[in-house]
Amino acid sequence: MSPDQLKSEIARRYGTPSLVVDLDVVERNIARVQALCDAAGVANRPHIKTHKSPVIAKMQRDAGARGITCQKLGEAEIMAEAGLDDILISYNLIGEEKTGRLGALLRRADVIVAADNPVTVAGLPRAAEIAGRELKVLVEIDTGRKRAGVETPGEAVALARDIASRPGLRFAGFLAYPPEGGIEATQRFVDTAGAGLRAEGLGIEILSSGGTPNLLTLGQLRGVTEHRAGTSIFNDRMMMRAGVATLADCALTVLAMVVSRAGPERGILDAGSKTLTSDTGGGLDGYGLILEHPQARIASFAEEHGFLDLAACNDRPKVGDLVRIVPNHVCVVANMHDRYVTVRGGEIVGELPVAARGLVR
Amino acid sequence: MSPDQLKSEIARRYGTPSLVVDLDVVERNIARVQALCDAAGVANRPHIKTHKSPVIAKMQRDAGARGITCQKLGEAEIMAEAGLDDILISYNLIGEEKTGRLGALLRRADVIVAADNPVTVAGLPRAAEIAGRELKVLVEIDTGRKRAGVETPGEAVALARDIASRPGLRFAGFLAYPPEGGIEATQRFVDTAGAGLRAEGLGIEILSSGGTPNLLTLGQLRGVTEHRAGTSIFNDRMMMRAGVATLADCALTVLAMVVSRAGPERGILDAGSKTLTSDTGGGLDGYGLILEHPQARIASFAEEHGFLDLAACNDRPKVGDLVRIVPNHVCVVANMHDRYVTVRGGEIVGELPVAARGLVR
Repeated sequence: MSPDQLKSEIARRYGTPSLVVDLDVVERNIARVQALCDAAGVANRPHIKTHKSPVIAKMQRDAGARGITCQKLGEAEIMAEAGLDDILISYNLIGEEKTGRLGALLRRADVIVAADNPVTVAGLPRAAEIAGRELKVLVEIDTGRKRAGVETPGEAVALARDIASRPGLRFAGFLAYPPEGGIEATQRFVDTAGAGLRAEGLGIEILSSGGTPNLLTLGQLRGVTEHRAGTSIFNDRMMMRAGVATLADCALTVLAMVVSRAGPERGILDAGSKTLTSDTGGGLDGYGLILEHPQARIASFAEEHGFLDLAACNDRPKVGDLVRIVPNHVCVVANMHDRYVTVRGGEIVGELPVAARGLVR
Repeated sequence: MSPDQLKSEIARRYGTPSLVVDLDVVERNIARVQALCDAAGVANRPHIKTHKSPVIAKMQRDAGARGITCQKLGEAEIMAEAGLDDILISYNLIGEEKTGRLGALLRRADVIVAADNPVTVAGLPRAAEIAGRELKVLVEIDTGRKRAGVETPGEAVALARDIASRPGLRFAGFLAYPPEGGIEATQRFVDTAGAGLRAEGLGIEILSSGGTPNLLTLGQLRGVTEHRAGTSIFNDRMMMRAGVATLADCALTVLAMVVSRAGPERGILDAGSKTLTSDTGGGLDGYGLILEHPQARIASFAEEHGFLDLAACNDRPKVGDLVRIVPNHVCVVANMHDRYVTVRGGEIVGELPVAARGLVR
């Protein structure tokens, strides 16, 4: 059907606002990332935080991904339940509630975790004990983002030694998330820490790097064994700005309706912060790109209202019009919704649950 | 148990991050709003967008509320299914998917809707037809917020006439959401429109006002028949700033754990934008108030990381510490989670589903 018919049919069957995922684009994105990883000789371990769907995770695995990355234990549990069995949880898991669940998860899947401090490390042997098998632990290193991660090679070596000394734990390497342009700093950190590790009789089995923008420099980090890209599955305005995606690579759009034209230069979408989130994408103009009216600015939000500034817009939308929006940051948008409407070749395929939505624990 | 024991026990049983709701405070907040409404002779029609729980909506009803307010049809459906039967949906409902569902809802509950444009009005008779009963429609008026709503009394009268002329629809009055300090402007609008309506043989049966900060001026708007307050059920930093709540009135806190102390002046919570949202509360400092460390600033977020700036903090939290956070804007935080952990008198009561979470359609 025509693009307009498709929009109307989705609105009629599923209502607005709805997340619409083009499976043709998803498959192209999967193939592209896998080809980049293959060409660089780096294993592909996509981050599922973007799509939160075991179905899509299996598409990635079937295309050649070694395993997956999850940010929270709850996401990993959903993925393991669906049959994904090689899972990196790139997060400090602390406390008996978490280590208990981690132990149960490790019994049924290959799990690797990350740690950046001794408190985390001290609790992890309990998970290995529950599972009755060894738990691989990466030391998370910070090479410039000022997120999680130890800040010096010396700390990294000390934490690796701590891990290696604990019953049931195996020091497996480093988890890095180099800032854009931060390959050199990451290389220095890893090389220095690597020398320190050798002196301790320890080696780096896994050097995990990540980030969709870092696909552009894939393999430049010597010794890297795997890459974690998340956003590349759908892409968004941030990835377009980073130069790693074009509009044609954006697989997810929000189908929304204009529900009010409160003033001549104002309009209101039925998609507010509960649909699109207040994420600015680090300073992008407006809260998303309206494909039909690129000059219409999504200027602000209430929870269920997206307030449009139409001042720069010659062809202004009418009440009842359906529009498609490319989000600033697609990961946080996917997290707001329970299902995707999937399309392929301009036809509706069906629904796909966002199964790991909201699993912050 | 002691406050520290309570935190540990919640973390052990439910994990972190968790939303913790103090039912003692909730009941006080319900009683306070109902008493204010009773004293002003205004019906209480709380907005459920804050708590999204039929159980809490029934507590409000049982304390004297006439009915409830929902922002989206999906929220109203959940509430009706649970037995709430007097529901205002303060939103333009457009398109056959929405009017079909509205018709089905109207069959089983007393429903009032709002409209600010003729496209919305033109579709509503279909809902009345499906239900086989009259549908009450309010004209939404904008008296200064520049949200939804017709901007002039003349437009309000014209739209009222349009509603009254349609089969199955009944013009029932006005839906207002006066800006803070906007009672006079709202009064002028309503009085002028009221005179115009009388000339048409129409009257204002319902004049609905709203907003928790407007509880401070409840009843000052002459002719007001009901008030819609949402945030007052839980309160938050925004309501504290507005002078309508104190810390003791804040019923919901986020229990989170410090999972990293990446640098001496930095810390990381396991509560990021997926838990607390990027809502600044209109310019509040930081993304929430940490009760145990009020000088620790929640400076920024990744999805699962809350980045703490501890520079101004003498007593700095350690990895593994549990903290309680009062959100900037509690409505959007509740929407991120599937359940509340409820407490009373310092003891855990149990879990309560956020049943209408994420129902943006």
